[in-house]
Amino acid sequence: MSSRPPTSHDVARRAGVSQPTVSRALRDDPSVSDETRQAVRAAADELGYVISARGRSLSTRTTNQIGIVVSDLGNPFYLQVLDTFHAALAQVDRRMLVLAHDGDDQTLLSRLLDGSVDGAILTTTVLASTIPAALVRRGFPFALLNRTIDDTPCDVCVVDNVAGARLAAETLVRLGHTEIAALFGPATTSTGRDREAGFRAVLDEAAIALPDTRVRSGPFDFDYGHAGVQELLAGRPTALFCANDVIALGAFNALRAAGVRIPDDLTLIGFDDIAVAGWEVFELTTVRQDIDRMVQVAAGMVLERIDGPGRPPEQVVLEPTLVERATHGPPAASR
Amino acid sequence: MSSRPPTSHDVARRAGVSQPTVSRALRDDPSVSDETRQAVRAAADELGYVISARGRSLSTRTTNQIGIVVSDLGNPFYLQVLDTFHAALAQVDRRMLVLAHDGDDQTLLSRLLDGSVDGAILTTTVLASTIPAALVRRGFPFALLNRTIDDTPCDVCVVDNVAGARLAAETLVRLGHTEIAALFGPATTSTGRDREAGFRAVLDEAAIALPDTRVRSGPFDFDYGHAGVQELLAGRPTALFCANDVIALGAFNALRAAGVRIPDDLTLIGFDDIAVAGWEVFELTTVRQDIDRMVQVAAGMVLERIDGPGRPPEQVVLEPTLVERATHGPPAASR
Repeated sequence: MSSRPPTSHDVARRAGVSQPTVSRALRDDPSVSDETRQAVRAAADELGYVISARGRSLSTRTTNQIGIVVSDLGNPFYLQVLDTFHAALAQVDRRMLVLAHDGDDQTLLSRLLDGSVDGAILTTTVLASTIPAALVRRGFPFALLNRTIDDTPCDVCVVDNVAGARLAAETLVRLGHTEIAALFGPATTSTGRDREAGFRAVLDEAAIALPDTRVRSGPFDFDYGHAGVQELLAGRPTALFCANDVIALGAFNALRAAGVRIPDDLTLIGFDDIAVAGWEVFELTTVRQDIDRMVQVAAGMVLERIDGPGRPPEQVVLEPTLVERATHGPPAASR
Repeated sequence: MSSRPPTSHDVARRAGVSQPTVSRALRDDPSVSDETRQAVRAAADELGYVISARGRSLSTRTTNQIGIVVSDLGNPFYLQVLDTFHAALAQVDRRMLVLAHDGDDQTLLSRLLDGSVDGAILTTTVLASTIPAALVRRGFPFALLNRTIDDTPCDVCVVDNVAGARLAAETLVRLGHTEIAALFGPATTSTGRDREAGFRAVLDEAAIALPDTRVRSGPFDFDYGHAGVQELLAGRPTALFCANDVIALGAFNALRAAGVRIPDDLTLIGFDDIAVAGWEVFELTTVRQDIDRMVQVAAGMVLERIDGPGRPPEQVVLEPTLVERATHGPPAASR
């Protein structure tokens, strides 16, 4: 086998057409007849010719790549997001470019705008981010997923985080808990802020105190849940709400190590319903958001905006549900 | 602010130099003096000018993108691989393009060779794959990570899977187990084949039988472990080796649901040492491979080959270690 890769000129020669006709045929240009298209495709297959993405990019001014911005690849939530997003893009012959965000907005903005992606989904945006406004000004196609911001109208798909946290709090109130603790997320994110607001609102309405000694705020990670629950145990709560499942799994493991029985000694409720939450050793009661649906919607928004930027910004808010598994129950005193 | 993005001509005008000088200055061409480079960079910063990856790609014939081929985004092992690989590439200002492989070699090959990546790491290659040989013929820079193949010399970084499985089997023999079961991986992969071979070799040497009724082969996933262990329990084994941690976690959850005590009723050993294996509720005894090191080595191989394709293929084999946690013990009869 020759080591020189075949070119479009080789394909043209074999198919008996011009090189520009090869290019048009392989990108399904309607000016090329079906017969010619088939002849060109057959010649390309025989020669093992591969269309160059760089060449295609020059002629169409698109990359067929969509970025996904994630700052937390250690959270299984984002693994599920990546998996679903990758599959959604493959269906429309687009590729996924993963862009991590280490907190430097200017670097991320440069990477989004340097021509390597046609659009992007942003999954870990903080409320103070300058990026959405900058992207809107540039007319860059993007959608926010999971986390939103306040002042910049743009395409957004999120779950109703206030309503989701209300479901968790209402469950605790209904079960008779009054000694309640919480490991909230970062107030710098819409998810952290809204889940805290929804949870607090229900307790306020039920006139149940949530003193500062029973509350922590921290990152959406396992170690915070693991350490945080140990600090809260001194206050003898009978129920603990965690702002996401990864925090709840950290707490669950620390409670197991400390010999605290769940839910006999402590009720535990999370948020997200990642796959691990349903494993038999956890059976975590949690607020479910439909991650796959959220990704599908956001992907559709970006692709639509790449095709035609005219539509006004849309905000899609999905409804959460409570998944009642085995980590909730009445407080010990009322058993 | 103007909605038109600034161009290199705008930067040239502001810096008082020609447009080609701007291009050379921004790609650190040594023909440009330090003073001019600084003036151009200052002008670019003031205007918010972003270098176009497409333009850069044309002048340098590289994309600064490295592909990573993964067929199993549902396994946390690959999440850790992606996370480490992304960080390694960011350090050298390269990006990660995730390419899923659905089993169609021709499609994957086209995607690797269409000019969108400078090189790639392949993480889920099956033994019968035609891809490595095709990439070698084309001179495409790549490395195999985690899984290798037999006949095509190419860059590879793997753990010694035979030695790792031997560690697990030797532990069972040392503890006095004779009624041993195994959930092996797919024989179509080097990891599945080599872990099975190493495990069987030790039992053979110790003259311990491993009858077919105590063995299953299946995919490296949770559901296989969950269902497989339930089939094996009828044979009353006292120890179970699982070909990776995800299988072992599936088995662990099924055993918990079935009321089987670990390790009192059944010793359980996995392979990989993913983060979840160390959680307190599992404390899984497992064979550790240094995932981060493996990724660093493979990334270095690909980057080096992109810079200069001359070096002969290298095979780096890392040593596994046994992490002794809480899921192993002597068989019940000898307690």
